[in-house]
Amino acid sequence: MFEHQRHKPPRILARPRELLLVCAPLRSNINLSRIARAASCCGLDEIFCTGPAKLERRIARDGADTIRIVSHRTLPPVLTKLKKEGFRLVGLEQTTGSIDIHHYAFERKTALVIGNERTGLTSQELDLLDDVVEIPVWGMPFSYNVATATAMALYEYCRQWPEG
Amino acid sequence: MFEHQRHKPPRILARPRELLLVCAPLRSNINLSRIARAASCCGLDEIFCTGPAKLERRIARDGADTIRIVSHRTLPPVLTKLKKEGFRLVGLEQTTGSIDIHHYAFERKTALVIGNERTGLTSQELDLLDDVVEIPVWGMPFSYNVATATAMALYEYCRQWPEG
Repeated sequence: MFEHQRHKPPRILARPRELLLVCAPLRSNINLSRIARAASCCGLDEIFCTGPAKLERRIARDGADTIRIVSHRTLPPVLTKLKKEGFRLVGLEQTTGSIDIHHYAFERKTALVIGNERTGLTSQELDLLDDVVEIPVWGMPFSYNVATATAMALYEYCRQWPEG
Repeated sequence: MFEHQRHKPPRILARPRELLLVCAPLRSNINLSRIARAASCCGLDEIFCTGPAKLERRIARDGADTIRIVSHRTLPPVLTKLKKEGFRLVGLEQTTGSIDIHHYAFERKTALVIGNERTGLTSQELDLLDDVVEIPVWGMPFSYNVATATAMALYEYCRQWPEG
């Protein structure tokens, strides 16, 4: 009835994605590499990182070739620049005023801002955001791994903008 | 404007989740442990596994305490039993006849069946499924990591059934 189609051709975007990922310095290049693989699969071609950011090929796979890692020293100037370029700055955190992602309509031109595994985004970074979205949690350990949460948020954006 | 709420209380399900995860033997206990953490966060309390399955606490975190790993020798008898108990058996793969998960309405009582990282589900297992869902892919490496794909599918199910 069902037969494997392991090399099914990917979807073609009608226009380039206008979703940007912006990452605070992450503790783990494994998490960054997992994020890069998922982002590349979703059709993104660039991740803005902070600090020393290096992809591990065994995790990111061919995503390591297709996704460009652009490193910056700190996040706030990047966020200010993207804001000027018309991106809506959306953090992925649990904060006061954060919106349940199930009920959030992403603008097409969005920069999704990802915090550090332990410390999240700084208050200076949070102050620059337009919105914060959170993914509902029902059980222990009451927080998703950063790469898992990012994958879920990428999924939701792509569900809302399947054509790019 | 936004302030961290790192210990926000989790959502309370109106009724226990009737979503079950069923995993083929995975190559990597890291992937299994990542799946366990995400599943526990989503309010599941059980994962059916095949073969030697062991959670790594540093990955699964407190999910290792809350999610029960039930191991079976092979998948087909488990699938047959779950089918008799009224679960809809839904594979997560790219196959002939697989449905875009964006357009799939999950039945509440669902067993989500996850294949091996390399080989996916066997044809004998595929034959027992009611449906197969696939997550759209737009870029290299043209496939999500198994734990990433499972997290996205868990997210979609929970989006459709936020109250359990």
